[in-house]
Amino acid sequence: MEQGSGNSKKQKQNKEFVKEITPKNVDYSQWYIDVILKTKMMDYAPMKGFMAIRPFGFAIWEKIQEQLDRRFKDTGHENAYFPTFIPQSLLQKEADHVEGFAPELAWVTKGGNEILNEPLAVRPTSEAIICDFYSRWIQSWRDLPVLINQWCNVVRWEKSTRPFLRTSEFLWQEGHTCHRTEEEAEEETLQMLEVYREFLETEMAIPAIAGRKTEREKFAGALRTYCVEALMTDGRALQAGTSHNLGQHFAKVFDITFLDQDDQLKHIWQTSWGVSTRLVGALIMVHGDDRGLILPPRMAPTQVVIVPILSKKEKERVLESVRELEIQLKQDLRVKLDDREEYSPGWKFNDWEMKGTPVRIEVGPKDLDKGHVVMARRDTGEKEFVKREEVPARLKELLEQIQNDMLEKAIEFRKANTRTGDDYEEFKRLMETERGLYLAPWCGEDDCEGKIKDETKATIRCLPFDTEVPGEKCFACGEKAVAAAYFARAY
Amino acid sequence: MEQGSGNSKKQKQNKEFVKEITPKNVDYSQWYIDVILKTKMMDYAPMKGFMAIRPFGFAIWEKIQEQLDRRFKDTGHENAYFPTFIPQSLLQKEADHVEGFAPELAWVTKGGNEILNEPLAVRPTSEAIICDFYSRWIQSWRDLPVLINQWCNVVRWEKSTRPFLRTSEFLWQEGHTCHRTEEEAEEETLQMLEVYREFLETEMAIPAIAGRKTEREKFAGALRTYCVEALMTDGRALQAGTSHNLGQHFAKVFDITFLDQDDQLKHIWQTSWGVSTRLVGALIMVHGDDRGLILPPRMAPTQVVIVPILSKKEKERVLESVRELEIQLKQDLRVKLDDREEYSPGWKFNDWEMKGTPVRIEVGPKDLDKGHVVMARRDTGEKEFVKREEVPARLKELLEQIQNDMLEKAIEFRKANTRTGDDYEEFKRLMETERGLYLAPWCGEDDCEGKIKDETKATIRCLPFDTEVPGEKCFACGEKAVAAAYFARAY
Repeated sequence: MEQGSGNSKKQKQNKEFVKEITPKNVDYSQWYIDVILKTKMMDYAPMKGFMAIRPFGFAIWEKIQEQLDRRFKDTGHENAYFPTFIPQSLLQKEADHVEGFAPELAWVTKGGNEILNEPLAVRPTSEAIICDFYSRWIQSWRDLPVLINQWCNVVRWEKSTRPFLRTSEFLWQEGHTCHRTEEEAEEETLQMLEVYREFLETEMAIPAIAGRKTEREKFAGALRTYCVEALMTDGRALQAGTSHNLGQHFAKVFDITFLDQDDQLKHIWQTSWGVSTRLVGALIMVHGDDRGLILPPRMAPTQVVIVPILSKKEKERVLESVRELEIQLKQDLRVKLDDREEYSPGWKFNDWEMKGTPVRIEVGPKDLDKGHVVMARRDTGEKEFVKREEVPARLKELLEQIQNDMLEKAIEFRKANTRTGDDYEEFKRLMETERGLYLAPWCGEDDCEGKIKDETKATIRCLPFDTEVPGEKCFACGEKAVAAAYFARAY
Repeated sequence: MEQGSGNSKKQKQNKEFVKEITPKNVDYSQWYIDVILKTKMMDYAPMKGFMAIRPFGFAIWEKIQEQLDRRFKDTGHENAYFPTFIPQSLLQKEADHVEGFAPELAWVTKGGNEILNEPLAVRPTSEAIICDFYSRWIQSWRDLPVLINQWCNVVRWEKSTRPFLRTSEFLWQEGHTCHRTEEEAEEETLQMLEVYREFLETEMAIPAIAGRKTEREKFAGALRTYCVEALMTDGRALQAGTSHNLGQHFAKVFDITFLDQDDQLKHIWQTSWGVSTRLVGALIMVHGDDRGLILPPRMAPTQVVIVPILSKKEKERVLESVRELEIQLKQDLRVKLDDREEYSPGWKFNDWEMKGTPVRIEVGPKDLDKGHVVMARRDTGEKEFVKREEVPARLKELLEQIQNDMLEKAIEFRKANTRTGDDYEEFKRLMETERGLYLAPWCGEDDCEGKIKDETKATIRCLPFDTEVPGEKCFACGEKAVAAAYFARAY
C-alpha cells in the first residue's frame, strides 16, 4: 500500500475499497477492466463489442484531442468532416485496401425504408471516400499541399474486443494529406510520426519507440507504414499511433492528378496518419497501479483535489478556507473541491486516488491552526506539509515534478524490459514469461516473421531508425540479418 | 457594389468575380449554393443527400463548438460518447419516438460478413441508447442530476436535402440530462434554451425568438419542446435549436429509477437539447450579401486579412512591414497575411470578401510613406486610413463595432419583417410574397394549425413567452384565441 496513514480505521476502509480492484500480478486483464469500470471511464453497450465512453474517460480523450489538435494546427493542418458512409464501389477501388478491411465492415443496406441499390460501408477509415473528394478538389500545383485532418468515429467489426484497446466502434483522428513530390510526402509522414512521439512523451509521459512497420504489418494500401510503439506494464507492446506514406497507390486508382508548374499532369503523393481512443488504454496500462489510475498532470481532468476534514464544530471555518483556496488555485490549475457531505474523507481519498488525481490537498481544523495544508502525491504516496501561502508555488513545482518522474519511471521500466540479443530460445522463454521488448537481428523475410509469430505469438513491432543490426545472422532462421527489429507480444 | 474603389481595372475584375454568385433577389436558393460552393465551405458527396464539410466551413463549426462547449461546461455539463448504433428493440421502446423517426432511419444489417440477428439503426438522435445506459448508471438520488452532452454525427434519411440545412448526415451536439424532480427538469430545459438564445445573439449576431413548440411540432417522445427561431433574409424562419422536457416518457419505458432520500423508488425526469451544423447555414443566410459571406468577428476563422500591395521595386520594404504587423496582431486576433504572389491584390480582395472576412488591411508603398494602413470593413464596405501605431487599438474597436452593427442590422431586419395582426387574407398574401414572421392570435387547435399549413405552407414556429394574445379570436378559424403564435414559412 502506497498511502502512509497511521489511522487504522482508515486503513481498513482503504483496504476494502482497494479490494474491489484485482491486483495486477493476480490477473492483469481483470485489473484493467476493474480500473476502467470502477472509475466509470466506460461501460459496455448492449451490442457486443461496443462501449460508451463515460464523462471521466471522455475528459481524458478531450485532453488528448486538445493537445494533438494544437500540434496539428501548428504544423499547418486544418480540420474537415467527410461522410460516415462509403459506397461499396469506392471501397473496392484500391485492391489491398479493400482486402485488408473487408472482413471488418458494417454495411448499411436499408435507408428510409428502402433497400439501397448500393450498400454503404460504415467507414473503417476514410481513405476511399476522401480520395473521391480529393480527385475533384485538386487541379493544379497551386492546390497543393492539402493538409486535412478529421476527428470522428469509425467502425471495425472486431471478433474479440477489449475496452479502449479494440472496440467495434472507436474515436480517432485521421490526417489525409496530398503532396507534389514523393520527398514531400515522406517528410510529412515522418513529421507526423514525430508529432505523435513527442506528444506521447511530453503530455502522456509515455516513452515510445518510433520505427517502420514490416510489409506484413503495414496499413492496407500503404507504401510504407511508420509507427510509435509503447510498452505496457505487463510487458506487452501497444501500437500507439501510425503514419502512412501512401505513395501513389490511391492517387492512381482514384485518378487524383494535378497540373504541375511544368505543365505536366501528374499523380499526387499522399499520406495518412492516426491515433485513437486506444491511447486512453495505454495511459491506464503504462502508469496505473493496484490502487487504480495514476494520471500524468498534463492529462488529468482534475489535477488537484481538495478534501476538507470536517468536524461538526469547525465545519464552517474549514469550508471557508478551502473555498478560498479553490478559487485561488483555479486560476492556473484544474482543481476540484470535494465538499460532499454524504461521503467521509477516507472514502474520498480512495475515490480520487483510484481516479489517478495527481495531487490531493487535505485541510482540517488542526492544519488551519498550524497555517499549513497536507499535500499527497498520487504517484509515490508521499505526503508533505506546505505553508498555506506557499501552496500555489509548491503545487506548480510538484505537478511538474510528478510529470517528469512519471516519464522517468516509464523509461526505466522500458529499459529494464528491453533486451537486445540473438538467442531465439531465450527469446521464446521471455515471451512466455516476462515478455517485454526484444531487439534482435532479423533476415527481413516474411516467412521467417510469420514463423516467429506462430511459435511465440510475438510480432515485429517496428524496425527502429538508426539502430545497428545487433548480429550478423537472423536470430530465428540463421540467414543473413538485414535489420534490427523489435519483437514483442502486442495488444 | 459596396467596395468603393476608384480603379476601373479593379472594378472590372471585381465584377467578373462577383458574377459567379447569383444575386439574392434573382434566386435566393442558388445564391446560397453559389456562396457555399465558391467559398469551399462544403462539397456534395457521391451519395445523394450527403456532404463533406471542407476546412473553411468546418472552421466555422469549430468556432460554434468552442463557444457552446464553454457554455455547457460553465453550466455544469460534461461530455461523453455513446455508440453510433441503436438496436432495433431499444428504438422501439418509446412509441412516439419510434413513430417519429422510423421513416428516416439507416439500417446496418450486416457486420463482418455476417447477417445480424437484430438490425442496428444508425443513430438519428440518441435518446434510446442513452436511456439504456442511464437505467444502469442511476441508482440513487446521489447519482442525480446527470448532466451529459455528446458531440457527434447523426444520420436521418432525408428525401430532399440542402447543404448544412438538411442533410442525411449532420454534426450536432445532444445534451441528455436526468433530474430528481419535474421542476428541476423544466428549469434545465429552459436554461439550455436560454444558453442557445444568448449564444446566437452574442457570438453569431443572430437575434432569435424563444418559445414553445405546438404539439404537432414537438420532438417525437417529448413532453414539451422549446425552440429558438431565427429569420433568414429571404423571409423564411429557421429553427436554430431545440430544448426538450422529456418528462418521464423515456424513464418509464426504459425503467430509469432512483431511490430517493425518502426511500421511495421513483422515475427520473429527463431533458434533451441540441443544435447542429445547420447553424452554419443560418449564419450564411442571416448575414450574407450578393458579394458572399459576411461573418461576425466572433465567428470568423480569420478576423483580419492583411493584403500587401507589391510593386517590383518596393516589394521587400512592404513585405517586411506587413510581416511585422502580422506578428503584432496575431497576439490577440485571428490574422492572416496573404502574401501569395500568384494572385493579384484585386483577386485577393474579392476572395477574402467573398469569404466574409470582417476586416481587410491594405498596405502599399504609398501607405508606408504616409505611415498609415487602409482598413476596409466587409459589412459596410467603408474604408479608413489608420496610423500604423494605432492599428491594434483601432482594430479591436472596429471588430467590436462590426459585431454590434451586424446584430443591430439583423434585429432591424427582423423588426421590419415581423407583423402582428389578425388578418388571415393579409397573412396569406404575405406568405406568398415577402413572407417574414406573422404574430397572430390562435385557437390552440391542431386541426386549425394543419389547415393553415395546407393553405399557406406556413407553420407555427413557436408560441413566444410572455406575449399578449393579439386578438380575441383565432385569426384563421375565428374560434376563441388562447395563444399568441409566430407563423412563418420555414426551412
